[in-house]
Amino acid sequence: MAQSDAYIYATYRVVDKPNQLQARADGIAIGLTVGSWTDLPQSKQDSVRQHCGIVASIEEVDAGARPDGTVTADITIGYPVINFTPTFAALLTTVFGKLSMDGLIKLVGLQIPEPFARAFPGPKFGVNGIRDRLKVYNRPLLMSIFKSCIGNNLDELTAHFTEQALGGADLIKDDEIFFTEAYATPEARVEAYTKAMERTRRETGKDVLYAVNLTGPVFELRDRARRLSDLGAGALLLNVFAYGLDVLRELAADPDIQVPIMAHPAVSGALYAAPQHGIAADILLGQLLRLGGADIVIYPSPYGSVTLERTVGQQLVSALRTPGPHNVCLPAPSAGIHPGLVPILLQDMGVDFIVNAGGGIHGHPDGATAGGQAFTAAIDAALAGVPLAEAANHSEPLRKALLRWGEAK
Amino acid sequence: MAQSDAYIYATYRVVDKPNQLQARADGIAIGLTVGSWTDLPQSKQDSVRQHCGIVASIEEVDAGARPDGTVTADITIGYPVINFTPTFAALLTTVFGKLSMDGLIKLVGLQIPEPFARAFPGPKFGVNGIRDRLKVYNRPLLMSIFKSCIGNNLDELTAHFTEQALGGADLIKDDEIFFTEAYATPEARVEAYTKAMERTRRETGKDVLYAVNLTGPVFELRDRARRLSDLGAGALLLNVFAYGLDVLRELAADPDIQVPIMAHPAVSGALYAAPQHGIAADILLGQLLRLGGADIVIYPSPYGSVTLERTVGQQLVSALRTPGPHNVCLPAPSAGIHPGLVPILLQDMGVDFIVNAGGGIHGHPDGATAGGQAFTAAIDAALAGVPLAEAANHSEPLRKALLRWGEAK
Repeated sequence: MAQSDAYIYATYRVVDKPNQLQARADGIAIGLTVGSWTDLPQSKQDSVRQHCGIVASIEEVDAGARPDGTVTADITIGYPVINFTPTFAALLTTVFGKLSMDGLIKLVGLQIPEPFARAFPGPKFGVNGIRDRLKVYNRPLLMSIFKSCIGNNLDELTAHFTEQALGGADLIKDDEIFFTEAYATPEARVEAYTKAMERTRRETGKDVLYAVNLTGPVFELRDRARRLSDLGAGALLLNVFAYGLDVLRELAADPDIQVPIMAHPAVSGALYAAPQHGIAADILLGQLLRLGGADIVIYPSPYGSVTLERTVGQQLVSALRTPGPHNVCLPAPSAGIHPGLVPILLQDMGVDFIVNAGGGIHGHPDGATAGGQAFTAAIDAALAGVPLAEAANHSEPLRKALLRWGEAK
Repeated sequence: MAQSDAYIYATYRVVDKPNQLQARADGIAIGLTVGSWTDLPQSKQDSVRQHCGIVASIEEVDAGARPDGTVTADITIGYPVINFTPTFAALLTTVFGKLSMDGLIKLVGLQIPEPFARAFPGPKFGVNGIRDRLKVYNRPLLMSIFKSCIGNNLDELTAHFTEQALGGADLIKDDEIFFTEAYATPEARVEAYTKAMERTRRETGKDVLYAVNLTGPVFELRDRARRLSDLGAGALLLNVFAYGLDVLRELAADPDIQVPIMAHPAVSGALYAAPQHGIAADILLGQLLRLGGADIVIYPSPYGSVTLERTVGQQLVSALRTPGPHNVCLPAPSAGIHPGLVPILLQDMGVDFIVNAGGGIHGHPDGATAGGQAFTAAIDAALAGVPLAEAANHSEPLRKALLRWGEAK
């Protein structure tokens, strides 16, 4: 595909009759930019040409037409960068606004030229920034997910935090559905857990980043994020797709928010999961979250019940890591992670990722602390090339975890 | 379905094995509220019971199982209202956050108890408020869509506005993809068009509401909306699904914004259009937009190329109008509307809707002013029960429009 920094290229997978493809592509290129072309006087054509979209390519991806005469094809349109402001609102409304409603059509490719990408913040911390905060290098990080938040008071939550921190987690995150503040506000949680961490640090020698769920009215989120940053929150958990990608972008760009942002994929399945509609997962959870400044990206792992296909997961991770103008994100494949999966995770992901577990920690027969310890033992073993079954001889928590969940091969 | 004001009921259409449905429903009811149940001590069960979800119903909707043993079923879960704050972020993250990624699953029903709904603003103006502003009653309103905005300077845009206003439009709206402010800021457009309207009013005797595209960084939208309100904007066009539903909610709730909000459906197809994923169109574009305070809802009409099925469109309109705690919205079925469709539109929609046209106005052989006049003639005729063909004898613009587009029967 020919490339120019003057255009944002979007690729749509559509189903249509072959003889309709060119007209449809032309209609998109003009209709979603300058509105009309052939009926413009020459002088006007000259002046608006720089704003007019172009058809970059049309490729049929089927072997042949279906019985109804339709084919699957990829249409790539170039949209002039000068039509955009550097916001997701402009980007999405233009490249997949009206088109999202236009029959069988999925946004499967998005090429953003580097000068335009640079107007987006990207991750403020990224892998290296988070490692520097934790002073942990050369191994994956371990994240523990609160088993439950709703209905617990601050003392109960703090006890639950402590139990997890003692297991050796590097990060501990709120439940994403924790919105009500009846029992413990985000501010109160940050303060209580910070004190709890002072105590667990004496025992474990480790820091823990607490990812607090950033909730509240949208126009108050920036102030709350600044406040939580000042209070010492370890990270901000953001339901990006419930609040909007531009909320992420502007929080990430804010110099007064000095905390990594962890993007939760809640609601994103409504956008990416359909085969012939919506936005491909690697664009939505990979490319756009990195552009918008997520330091950590939680996404459905190919191991659990809520899953992405393995190849889609790889494309997504690749989008988070590929060289570019922005910091590299930390992927956190999630759902169904237990200690027996750690060697495979390392093999698939390298060391720059987060082992993120909820049930795989809290479901340990001896509780959450042992559950965390089983994971840290599994991570150490896998990094040293020691089989888990062998490492289990030296770690009672790991032994019991393997009995409970087995070892994935 | 048994109802209680203590719960928000969400209905999911899933594909699963019949013997898995109960376990899946239980998993949702507990997993998306209190996290766990059976392993809680009795005392804790008592204290968190009020936060625990319930399975309201499970109904198979297929005649029988497929060859692979799966059936389609509707699972209805009740989520305790006390788990929520009155924000779309809380609502969507809870009822369709993780679940959106859980295989073949579509959110097809949402019952929000009235006390909770009252915590949302609903439309500030609604049908009656907009009619009062225009002093137009007992007929549908006519809205003209700017043919193109990008690449035009303020003088060109103002001339284009005037051309449309002279045709008799009640509302004139920006192109939703108009983001760049290089040629004319939203503030400058409101000021210029307000002056233009002073002139056209002398000729037509009519007011026009100009719907200005509310664009910019998300955390600046409220200030801009207040400014545009003070400057006399006729309406605010908001790309709700690009910016986020809570942005709509908070703009609608703001007492300093005294302008109707017009919700554009851009990007919404990525959420509603797939048959087995996402959120049903009547919930997304009907129920939620009304709850959030859209006064006018633009949606794909069942007449054009970008369409919704007729029954889905009817459900959507019903959600905008059904008696409830909030003002009634004005639906604006869009895409493919030409004067020959007006009698059918009136028959389908009654009088409380917006005839919204772009190509059907600008494509008129004699230009946009004649295009608007053809519509106003068609609306007058249809209201009087006069066949369009007959009315065309007294309206040259209508006669030419019918020659161009025909009359739908």
